[in-house]
Amino acid sequence: MSDAHAARRERLSEYCSAGGADAALITRPANVRYLTGCAPCGATLLLTRERALLVLPAELPPDDTGEHPYAADLPRLTAAPDQDTAEAAAEAAARFHVADLAVEEHDLTVSRHRALAAPAAGVRLLDLGRAVERLRVVKDEQELGELRIAAEIGDQALGELLESILVGRTERHLAMELERRMIDHGADRAGYPVSVGTGSHSGRGSHQPTDRRVEEGDFLTVSLGAQYRGYSVRTTRTFVIGAAPAAWQVELHRLVFEAQRAGREALAPGVLTSAPDRAAREVLRAGGHEEQPPRPFGHGVGLEVREAPQLGPAEMGKLDNRVPVTVGPGVHLPGRGGVRIEDTLVVRPLEEGGPELLTITTKELLAL
Amino acid sequence: MSDAHAARRERLSEYCSAGGADAALITRPANVRYLTGCAPCGATLLLTRERALLVLPAELPPDDTGEHPYAADLPRLTAAPDQDTAEAAAEAAARFHVADLAVEEHDLTVSRHRALAAPAAGVRLLDLGRAVERLRVVKDEQELGELRIAAEIGDQALGELLESILVGRTERHLAMELERRMIDHGADRAGYPVSVGTGSHSGRGSHQPTDRRVEEGDFLTVSLGAQYRGYSVRTTRTFVIGAAPAAWQVELHRLVFEAQRAGREALAPGVLTSAPDRAAREVLRAGGHEEQPPRPFGHGVGLEVREAPQLGPAEMGKLDNRVPVTVGPGVHLPGRGGVRIEDTLVVRPLEEGGPELLTITTKELLAL
Repeated sequence: MSDAHAARRERLSEYCSAGGADAALITRPANVRYLTGCAPCGATLLLTRERALLVLPAELPPDDTGEHPYAADLPRLTAAPDQDTAEAAAEAAARFHVADLAVEEHDLTVSRHRALAAPAAGVRLLDLGRAVERLRVVKDEQELGELRIAAEIGDQALGELLESILVGRTERHLAMELERRMIDHGADRAGYPVSVGTGSHSGRGSHQPTDRRVEEGDFLTVSLGAQYRGYSVRTTRTFVIGAAPAAWQVELHRLVFEAQRAGREALAPGVLTSAPDRAAREVLRAGGHEEQPPRPFGHGVGLEVREAPQLGPAEMGKLDNRVPVTVGPGVHLPGRGGVRIEDTLVVRPLEEGGPELLTITTKELLAL
Repeated sequence: MSDAHAARRERLSEYCSAGGADAALITRPANVRYLTGCAPCGATLLLTRERALLVLPAELPPDDTGEHPYAADLPRLTAAPDQDTAEAAAEAAARFHVADLAVEEHDLTVSRHRALAAPAAGVRLLDLGRAVERLRVVKDEQELGELRIAAEIGDQALGELLESILVGRTERHLAMELERRMIDHGADRAGYPVSVGTGSHSGRGSHQPTDRRVEEGDFLTVSLGAQYRGYSVRTTRTFVIGAAPAAWQVELHRLVFEAQRAGREALAPGVLTSAPDRAAREVLRAGGHEEQPPRPFGHGVGLEVREAPQLGPAEMGKLDNRVPVTVGPGVHLPGRGGVRIEDTLVVRPLEEGGPELLTITTKELLAL
């Protein structure tokens, strides 16, 4: 495990050197975790050509054994009480005679950045940009393993829900129940707030659960994802409550199902990141549904539940082997409800079987 | 309600003028909410001498009625798809011929700040600093009412827990149960993650619930707070499990109880913000317990569960009437556990009865 982290730090160091920086200051939590295997709140990682130094906040309590459970193999420094760990790291950089220090300008506030000037006097501050986010896009086998388990946990929680009585229960209670079940099945936590939308709330891209109760005849859209060892996936399914879905419900579900399938089938290494979204969107448009403004139907997942690459109609990158992404189109008819279906899949070449589906709960329009 | 928000915007405008800025760009979510009454994710408020303009992200969905539930009385602008609302607001500022625009440098990342340069060409960017945070410190009656309800909700959840069986249940399950009960009693959500620590996990300032089960003889520390209409409070209580607490447990609880009482009794308008912490810390020190490094025993609460003022030993401000704060000292003995007791109180002058206690669950060492 620590070899993987050391290798990632090595790749980042090489990137920095190529860009003219002799060190990097990493502050974004998911990036610190990616490079060290641990994620204490407020920590900063200083990475020079010669060494890596993890700077911890003063207030961090040790665990019961009196030891720090963090990166036992990495040199550590504790910041002064109330000191920003980025400042302490910048001081260390100056001590190590760093000349050009690349920082994460998309993470540091203007105030924090200004505060680096004094401790890092003599050190020139450059922008690292999203270099670590780019490193994170292609996952290694360990990471894919963790994503598979996260997906399994979500599927288990969803499966249990499908066997229980839903009519009369509120969206909020169902959401809390799903979260509890994911944790019971081994999740660190929910990867993002569980969404349950019933009736006219169904089919929405984002919906905060309310006290509305599930009723016969409703569409029910459930969106959840477990976080396992820091890695999160997403699943969204739409069901119908009661024995006999209406014709418009069967038709809308079929359309969204076909759109989502077109999106999934467009996934392959080398393909434009806009292709899955466009494929799904074309099916919906042919069925008379066009979303304005268009909201991207997918994105990468990993240590952040939403990360690069974005899978939207205007994107200009390419997909790679071993990149996990979501594909989640939907149609929402205000006042009526709708259908959203979302999977997490790993991009794989055709000779390896095509995209690997992680979230395997059935996508059929189950009548519950 | 909207009069209160308009009055707050007026005060901020005056502050800006006094500081040489003719407009302010507010991005920090709690501050946008404080000034407008609403808090759509990613919104920016532009406040000039003549007008207030709320800039919403393009992707914001309307609710079922097709209307925006946000600040119906405030002029609104929707940013372009994928556009940072701060950029759209900066463009508007340029259109309104703003000369000096004060921005929240403690909120905007370096990247976002840089991105304002082009749309706001010709506009000089200044730092607003924590002006809105300072305005938020003293609460009006509406806010105090919301804090009282939040406190009541937490007390209800805690009270119900105390009547249930605890032995054999895990910290995580108890935490999830408490969160569910707070929501059932009307909370928007938990103000912060519920903390339950049993046995050697008890008494810690921050503890993430684990799968450890409650056992006879354990100290049990519970920390929770409901968020109601955006406003959050904090309560922490320590109990003992089983009929007969050990002598060391009775003694430690008495010590922390006395320390916390000294802290509460030190609250008054005009008093230094360091005074309550010092009073509590002195009692603990006399009892043989000195925390190194010292972690502040309290802080303000409001739209953010931790906000100004900080109540720590090195603070240099003064308390004011109608400022709600926490007072929460504790002692944790690694490997053994400990006691933490925390209340939320509103600072009031003696002639109005002294500090108003919001969190009224008993602080006695109940044997459960």
